[in-house]
Amino acid sequence: MRPAGASCPLCIETGGELVWQDRRLRVILADDAQYPGFTRVVWQDHVVEFGDLDPAGRAWLVEVLVAVEGVMRRVLEPVKVNLASLGNQVAHLHWHMIPRWPDDAHFPAPVWATPDPARVEAAAHRVARTRERLPQYRRSLREVLDALAGAG
Amino acid sequence: MRPAGASCPLCIETGGELVWQDRRLRVILADDAQYPGFTRVVWQDHVVEFGDLDPAGRAWLVEVLVAVEGVMRRVLEPVKVNLASLGNQVAHLHWHMIPRWPDDAHFPAPVWATPDPARVEAAAHRVARTRERLPQYRRSLREVLDALAGAG
Repeated sequence: MRPAGASCPLCIETGGELVWQDRRLRVILADDAQYPGFTRVVWQDHVVEFGDLDPAGRAWLVEVLVAVEGVMRRVLEPVKVNLASLGNQVAHLHWHMIPRWPDDAHFPAPVWATPDPARVEAAAHRVARTRERLPQYRRSLREVLDALAGAG
Repeated sequence: MRPAGASCPLCIETGGELVWQDRRLRVILADDAQYPGFTRVVWQDHVVEFGDLDPAGRAWLVEVLVAVEGVMRRVLEPVKVNLASLGNQVAHLHWHMIPRWPDDAHFPAPVWATPDPARVEAAAHRVARTRERLPQYRRSLREVLDALAGAG
């Protein structure tokens, strides 16, 4: 694991609201206006590609991704969860976990497509209701990840 | 694992050029004009979310993703690999694996952003050179995945 130093934003900043972390990874909320519950799982060390992790690190990351997905589905009740590790802009391993709804600004396109302003407006009430669930989402994430880390 | 029947395109069609498969998953080439080497790993059974897999299935899928990523990096030499499981349009578990280059039509944006036509033109020679490596990419994928499956 090589330190990237001052040039990597995810080495020097949390990158969002810290919800949970251990020595290997952190779970943050992205505070996205259209996607409340948009979550990122960031590897603490500067690693570029998923395949650069050793098997134990990879297994732990996957366990956490699945645990976060479970909480997201149970608490936020999206119609689909989107997972992505891109890293073209910040080449420090991080996973996007995005809850999706049929009325969201991009559905069924990926969230990186151009949004339709009319859909942003139409989704406002549902987005607000989803946002109300964020305190429960944070609590459940911490409970589930504490239990998972304790069991490991 | 529930069969989705005639309503799911990935239950009734391969979804691309079949490169390798076993009873649990298949590896296909997407034949994308801008992204030669765009690969998808499709779960054979109709499963919706990554977290719906049982632990053994998930571990095998992750092993294959990492193996494909390794071949992609070694043979195609992209600057970054993008991984994504979205499924908003076809809610049958499949992973996009996209080799990226600094001169590609979207870089550093995700491939689902609006492409810049001028960049498509500028990348044409590099895209053609990448395409020339696809026979080696297919061969290496088969060798590596055969070995992995044999070792399992």
